[in-house]
Amino acid sequence: MNVADAVDLTATAGDALRRLRNEVPLVQCITNAVVTNFTANALLALGAAPAMVDLPEEAGPFAAVAGGVLVNLGTPTAEQRVAALEVSRSDARWVLDPVAVGALPVRTPLAHELVDAGPTIVRGNASEVLAIAGDGAGGRGVDSIAGPDDAAEAAAGLARRTGGIVAVSGPIDLVTDGVRTIRVTGGDALLTKVTGGGCSLGATMAAFLAVAEPLVAAVAASAVHAAASERAASRSEGPGSFAIAFLDALATVAPEDVDRVLAR
Amino acid sequence: MNVADAVDLTATAGDALRRLRNEVPLVQCITNAVVTNFTANALLALGAAPAMVDLPEEAGPFAAVAGGVLVNLGTPTAEQRVAALEVSRSDARWVLDPVAVGALPVRTPLAHELVDAGPTIVRGNASEVLAIAGDGAGGRGVDSIAGPDDAAEAAAGLARRTGGIVAVSGPIDLVTDGVRTIRVTGGDALLTKVTGGGCSLGATMAAFLAVAEPLVAAVAASAVHAAASERAASRSEGPGSFAIAFLDALATVAPEDVDRVLAR
Amino acid sequence: MNVADAVDLTATAGDALRRLRNEVPLVQCITNAVVTNFTANALLALGAAPAMVDLPEEAGPFAAVAGGVLVNLGTPTAEQRVAALEVSRSDARWVLDPVAVGALPVRTPLAHELVDAGPTIVRGNASEVLAIAGDGAGGRGVDSIAGPDDAAEAAAGLARRTGGIVAVSGPIDLVTDGVRTIRVTGGDALLTKVTGGGCSLGATMAAFLAVAEPLVAAVAASAVHAAASERAASRSEGPGSFAIAFLDALATVAPEDVDRVLAR
Repeated sequence: MNVADAVDLTATAGDALRRLRNEVPLVQCITNAVVTNFTANALLALGAAPAMVDLPEEAGPFAAVAGGVLVNLGTPTAEQRVAALEVSRSDARWVLDPVAVGALPVRTPLAHELVDAGPTIVRGNASEVLAIAGDGAGGRGVDSIAGPDDAAEAAAGLARRTGGIVAVSGPIDLVTDGVRTIRVTGGDALLTKVTGGGCSLGATMAAFLAVAEPLVAAVAASAVHAAASERAASRSEGPGSFAIAFLDALATVAPEDVDRVLAR
Repeated sequence: MNVADAVDLTATAGDALRRLRNEVPLVQCITNAVVTNFTANALLALGAAPAMVDLPEEAGPFAAVAGGVLVNLGTPTAEQRVAALEVSRSDARWVLDPVAVGALPVRTPLAHELVDAGPTIVRGNASEVLAIAGDGAGGRGVDSIAGPDDAAEAAAGLARRTGGIVAVSGPIDLVTDGVRTIRVTGGDALLTKVTGGGCSLGATMAAFLAVAEPLVAAVAASAVHAAASERAASRSEGPGSFAIAFLDALATVAPEDVDRVLAR
Repeated sequence: MNVADAVDLTATAGDALRRLRNEVPLVQCITNAVVTNFTANALLALGAAPAMVDLPEEAGPFAAVAGGVLVNLGTPTAEQRVAALEVSRSDARWVLDPVAVGALPVRTPLAHELVDAGPTIVRGNASEVLAIAGDGAGGRGVDSIAGPDDAAEAAAGLARRTGGIVAVSGPIDLVTDGVRTIRVTGGDALLTKVTGGGCSLGATMAAFLAVAEPLVAAVAASAVHAAASERAASRSEGPGSFAIAFLDALATVAPEDVDRVLAR
């Protein structure tokens, strides 16, 4: 991070975590079958209240009362696709995670339609952001071939187009509003050996949307995950125990840990 | 519990657990995407044989051979809604868990239709029980705003209406057949920081329905979960490790532990 | 194993694991709601790249680029059934896991149609293999009533019919190409107390299909799971911690461990 933003965001991001725990925001998730459980547990551990309301006719009304909504396209069934569009037409603050967008013929046009609806935050890996910005053909399934900085320009352009925030996850997370670009360093490579690391980060961003401005929400979520994954890595013997320790760590990560990550 | 019931139920509930482990009952679950894995693992750990048969045309025939069935409305897809109705028309003993019923427009009418079909046990939090009994608007997603005792009268009335058992989960669990009301104390607050605590309790009740009368089944299940969650809490460092320790504890909870909880 | 095969397969199976970790094959899974998360994490831990692409119109095209595909019929929704057929018509190497096939009226005809399409490997428990070979009525849900050796002849006959491999899981795993029959011993009974042991074995076979001939793939996968479950059992206190330790063990199981299992 550059210094001016650091001062700003450190205070704000730590405060956002305090507010989140006080307010226990209701976070609606339309997410994929692989990570539903992990995502709900991550939100509970963090201090939010998850609700996986992903049915047509329920998703729209629920979005109206949720503090933040996640729309993750990992395994978008026909019912979830309708539900996702309902959310996109609501007034909710929402995060779009366009998983594996690029060449796959069902999710790709849906992702573009959702981007046009103006998600508050778009979160993906570099390949996904390049694909959704129109500059790439996507990755290899959920893998990213490109690194975050390869997508920096595309991300900023996409943010200017949606009027929202774009977050690119990778060894260094990059968050941009189209003008400013914040880099969040840290985390642990074990997160890439567990499914749901990126997906739950999108959910955490949705939780922070209930208590902070979008740029702060995306940065605070990235810092929380970096801090929690570092603590978890120090207490685990492999990817299985890491995932469990990560949930334990989310429950104890403190505003000061967020500060520490953002002060790097 | 009052004393007379305690004597009765202690012996019967401990015995029910012995029978469950001897008979390894087949437990069919139509449940939500968030907790499918946790629920199946909880049933396996306890000593039952889970089968997540939730397809139209399969759910009805399978219910005819299952020892008990769970119908949980957490994320009721169109296919699961048809499957749930098939179960409700079978002769099976079944548990209805009307997750987040109240205002949501798809599950709420379905829950009422299922209640009219006479579930053997209805299990929910206080807000859900109030909503399904017609006395409340439901909670905030899966959260309960009310406490179990706020729902005591509504629960008893609902039990008289269905001719079955109603179980209200909370800091103290309340189980009623419309005449008698049993309170099961214990458990650990960490259960509320993990998704699937309540949902798997409904599954455990369905397992006990294969080996015990409905009132005993609901009480025994509540006591098993209280005992297991207390043991798990003493061996965990947060919600992630608690969920794992809870599964470990379900495998070792003994009839005597059930007795001990019910003798409080 | 008989001695001649042992020499052959030991070297080849250990090598296959080395290749798998070098190549990080893309493994597509159409699998059931209970084990999606565990399966993806098992593949990641092992060193493969899972992608749960199970939508109609996406499953077929994705199979064309996947190194191996798993089609598991545990909870086959209408969309997954279409997706499964798309895979069966692709040129992909694929594993069919006909979960609970036998009497259930939706999955059973689908399983037969898929078998007719010639899966590279069919993996199931003895009851499932007997049922799919036309010699049995299936088990009790996902349980097997019969033991692997009860299904040895049926498995060999099925392998000759499909022109592929048939793997029967149980206390001793049996792998046959219709002519040769390899037995893999080891593993731990705790695997039967955790959901997803068998399902993830099918996924591991799909991963090995990307780097080895089908017979070697099935044998190597069985040996990897045997070695990992033994290590996990020595480090766990029950089924919950066993599942986590199993994921940790998959990340560290070495070619030499595979050799050791196959040399028994």
